[in-house]
Amino acid sequence: MHNFVFHIPTKILFGQGTLPALGPETAAWGRKALLVYGRASLRRNGLHTLIVESLQSSGVEVVEHGGVRANPLLSHAREGVAKAKSARVEVIVAAGGGSVIDTAKAIAAGALVEHDLWKFFIGKKGIKGALPLLTVPTVAASGSEMNSGMVLTNDQTREKLGFGHRLLFPKVSILDPTTTYTLSREYTAYGAIDALCHAVEFYLSTSEPETSIQDRLMEGLIENAMHACNRCQATPCDYAARADLMWTAALALSGLTAAGLGRVGMPMHLIEHSLSALFDVAHGAGLSVVMLGWLRAHRERCASRIAQLGRRIFACSEPSEQQLAKRTLILLEQWLHSIGAPTTLNHLGISAADIPALSENTCAQARLWRLHDYTPQRVAAILSLCL
Amino acid sequence: MHNFVFHIPTKILFGQGTLPALGPETAAWGRKALLVYGRASLRRNGLHTLIVESLQSSGVEVVEHGGVRANPLLSHAREGVAKAKSARVEVIVAAGGGSVIDTAKAIAAGALVEHDLWKFFIGKKGIKGALPLLTVPTVAASGSEMNSGMVLTNDQTREKLGFGHRLLFPKVSILDPTTTYTLSREYTAYGAIDALCHAVEFYLSTSEPETSIQDRLMEGLIENAMHACNRCQATPCDYAARADLMWTAALALSGLTAAGLGRVGMPMHLIEHSLSALFDVAHGAGLSVVMLGWLRAHRERCASRIAQLGRRIFACSEPSEQQLAKRTLILLEQWLHSIGAPTTLNHLGISAADIPALSENTCAQARLWRLHDYTPQRVAAILSLCL
Repeated sequence: MHNFVFHIPTKILFGQGTLPALGPETAAWGRKALLVYGRASLRRNGLHTLIVESLQSSGVEVVEHGGVRANPLLSHAREGVAKAKSARVEVIVAAGGGSVIDTAKAIAAGALVEHDLWKFFIGKKGIKGALPLLTVPTVAASGSEMNSGMVLTNDQTREKLGFGHRLLFPKVSILDPTTTYTLSREYTAYGAIDALCHAVEFYLSTSEPETSIQDRLMEGLIENAMHACNRCQATPCDYAARADLMWTAALALSGLTAAGLGRVGMPMHLIEHSLSALFDVAHGAGLSVVMLGWLRAHRERCASRIAQLGRRIFACSEPSEQQLAKRTLILLEQWLHSIGAPTTLNHLGISAADIPALSENTCAQARLWRLHDYTPQRVAAILSLCL
Repeated sequence: MHNFVFHIPTKILFGQGTLPALGPETAAWGRKALLVYGRASLRRNGLHTLIVESLQSSGVEVVEHGGVRANPLLSHAREGVAKAKSARVEVIVAAGGGSVIDTAKAIAAGALVEHDLWKFFIGKKGIKGALPLLTVPTVAASGSEMNSGMVLTNDQTREKLGFGHRLLFPKVSILDPTTTYTLSREYTAYGAIDALCHAVEFYLSTSEPETSIQDRLMEGLIENAMHACNRCQATPCDYAARADLMWTAALALSGLTAAGLGRVGMPMHLIEHSLSALFDVAHGAGLSVVMLGWLRAHRERCASRIAQLGRRIFACSEPSEQQLAKRTLILLEQWLHSIGAPTTLNHLGISAADIPALSENTCAQARLWRLHDYTPQRVAAILSLCL
């Protein structure tokens, strides 16, 4: 086991009926809040009213910053920073999916500095402070509600970059599974794929040979992401299933899974970010495709790990590790297909002709993530297995 | 899934070579520390010197409070409180097993009040504050290094009582698996049993019917406690095995396992505390015996849960759930026997004649733990299955 620091300072309030705690919890951190949210759904499902009422009844003044979109944009986060500064807000509240929470993190850090916040993303400036952040996730996917990471797309340069800093952990996150009841079948699947993929990336990218306890935790999360997704799709208002998926997604990128694994990469996310940056693909949809391509490209090299996953997740067996790894990929693809996720670039409207541009875009990020072995040639080879 | 609060504020520094961080981490909380530790082992293995040097080189003055024994005593914690008050220490550092850390927690809370600290344990006073606590666990067992619980034995009344409060979470815990290299084969087993039993108790006492994700996490921890224990006993200085057991034990009672399970009881611990209180039995040794008796008493009622555990942990199968539950108990007993743990009260020098006194002692605690269905008759019936 590699040395590690494990520290999740975020307080999680989990369950139905927990939303009214938002006001008092926020008031403990500030009296004027920037409320960051998305476009239509928060108003449509009545959550916006509940949140504003809870905040105001605790004496917290609300400044609105709606309009975050999927694959959130740097320009919109910059507007949020300007608003936070001019209104002198003391606390940020994010209500929505991973895009909303990530935008709120960027604003929380950007509001305390004079320079442009993109400098954090390209490594030109370090984070020294951040406004306190509270979140109300409404999608089970990114785990941003219980981690210190964020991802933004620079709409000028078409770079989608992510990074993390311990000061970006939310202070409090309120996870009410009923807020995810209205998620479509499609986006429920994309969320589950995102959560599953976080664990799969760590599972396959560790250089640590002894990962006994982490393996069991990751396998449990992977299996649950699949199982809970199936149940949510069958019965969108199945509380137990929504709760299971929500908690699984929060844990999958919380620091629990990577503890002890040493330096782990997230090459599937790396490549997917280019699909999102250049083609505005939904993150989970892109991951579905890229994960399969990456696994095909590394099937032989990672055969024993993929085989162990298959044995434990799908309870399948084959005469050899190579055959079992192959079978695991087939079963994973079948599952992705069954939940309505795209499994080829063609499904996303992307063709072989787009691969060079995607590979170039990926490698610009790869350098920032220190994944130096991801050359344009290697990325192109992976993407060609996604066709 | 029941509603829950998940909050582990403790920062964990895990791995070999992390001990020198103790000084700087402590200095961030205070300039004068009460160092709480046990009797001989800390000095014998050189850790005492390392710790004092680390603290002093960071400008932290050290006041010593050694002498904590297994089944730690209230009287010794009271002495620590008096010392902490008279020396006006600002921070507590605990280095040792669960007994040492629990004693340190009691001192941390007791040092800030005028009343006797036992009032916390019997519910007469609530905890309103505590000195900051840092820990260096040297045994993989109780998980006290990453939770808010503590257990003490009142040496006058022979009550062994435990409870928890969020203010008792350590600020920082430094987990170096090499500190457990010198643990005997016997105490390695007792620690693993304690960790395993934490997860088993939650697994079997939840009233929540939908525990998909929690089950996988608990099963993973149970399996790892067993597997890592076997490896540690075979090769005491196997770093990976020691690390696995240490991290498993920390997670097993961290709040991760019980999240969403609703109100869980710890009846095996409850009954074991009486064995420790009246016969000064080592906690893990007592748990080994009591766990088997409790499982025998509840085998039919909990057949489907015990069977699921057996299926997933021991990969065994039988024609019926009842048979599988029975088989699971046999396999568990065989494992306990294989690691040298006692499996009957007789092994502990306790006879049938002692059961009435043990049952009475247990039930005094049961009322405090609100386990009202644990009557003397019921406890006696369980204990008679431990003979």
